[in-house]
Amino acid sequence: MKKMILSILVDNTAGVLSRVSGLFSRRGYNIDSLTVSETENPEFSRMTVAVTGEDLILEQIKKQLSKLEDVKEILELKSGESVVRELILVKVKVEPKERQAMEALVNIYRGNIVDVAMTSLTIELTGSQAKLDAFLRLLDGFEIKELVRTGITGLLRGFEEEKRSAE
Amino acid sequence: MKKMILSILVDNTAGVLSRVSGLFSRRGYNIDSLTVSETENPEFSRMTVAVTGEDLILEQIKKQLSKLEDVKEILELKSGESVVRELILVKVKVEPKERQAMEALVNIYRGNIVDVAMTSLTIELTGSQAKLDAFLRLLDGFEIKELVRTGITGLLRGFEEEKRSAE
Repeated sequence: MKKMILSILVDNTAGVLSRVSGLFSRRGYNIDSLTVSETENPEFSRMTVAVTGEDLILEQIKKQLSKLEDVKEILELKSGESVVRELILVKVKVEPKERQAMEALVNIYRGNIVDVAMTSLTIELTGSQAKLDAFLRLLDGFEIKELVRTGITGLLRGFEEEKRSAE
Repeated sequence: MKKMILSILVDNTAGVLSRVSGLFSRRGYNIDSLTVSETENPEFSRMTVAVTGEDLILEQIKKQLSKLEDVKEILELKSGESVVRELILVKVKVEPKERQAMEALVNIYRGNIVDVAMTSLTIELTGSQAKLDAFLRLLDGFEIKELVRTGITGLLRGFEEEKRSAE
């Protein structure tokens, strides 16, 4: 089993998302995360798909993606060659007397407290999956009321890009 | 025309993404952004969908979403009642002599420089769409080599949630 992150440049059309996600689901493949949004060019969107699976099947999916008319470019974001990041928002049950301890924890991870209510705090944190998972493990003693993750996005490191365009 | 952000809790199954995105595309609706990822409970995923459209049709889509078997909860994230955030990574052409100026700009926006190459910098920035758009406008004099956005994610503010559960 392999974890793969694909960065897919697609035409900014209405059906492209269901066509791409359909390719995965028809094989019973569950996507770990997917983000899709506009790029620097309004004609195109960029999807970032994180998926876990057998090498062989992932290669098949890559090949079939490249045959879709809407798909302009597929890039695999490998660790070392790319910068990948994710954003989480987590609402934690925190009584007023615990607020200071939570604030200290959030500061260590360079997170931000973005909302405070009577018995909860909402924390925003950005980083690699490893960093976010470590932070979530630290919250183990607290009740997590709600957690949303954007899913992974990323791009090639500048040096990697310079190397490829020189080839 | 109205901009709407929907937070949709769904079963973590293989086909759910293409079923949900199909509902939008069958109406020719282009999704502005979509993020989907795991939640605090591995049985469920949470999708955050940003979409622009006519009030009436958006209400129809909401109704039809709620009829899908995989859909457990639909929440509209209205401004004021919710915290919404997005993460961008932007690779900008920056010559060594311009690096310091770019660093100053990034610091003002509390962004991070996450990669440096010979002729480019990659900047990570988190915030509301308004903040991110303002930053991107500031980059106008620079060549943007690549831009990825996670798309919007968000959750209800703690006070709003406390109010609703007291009702």
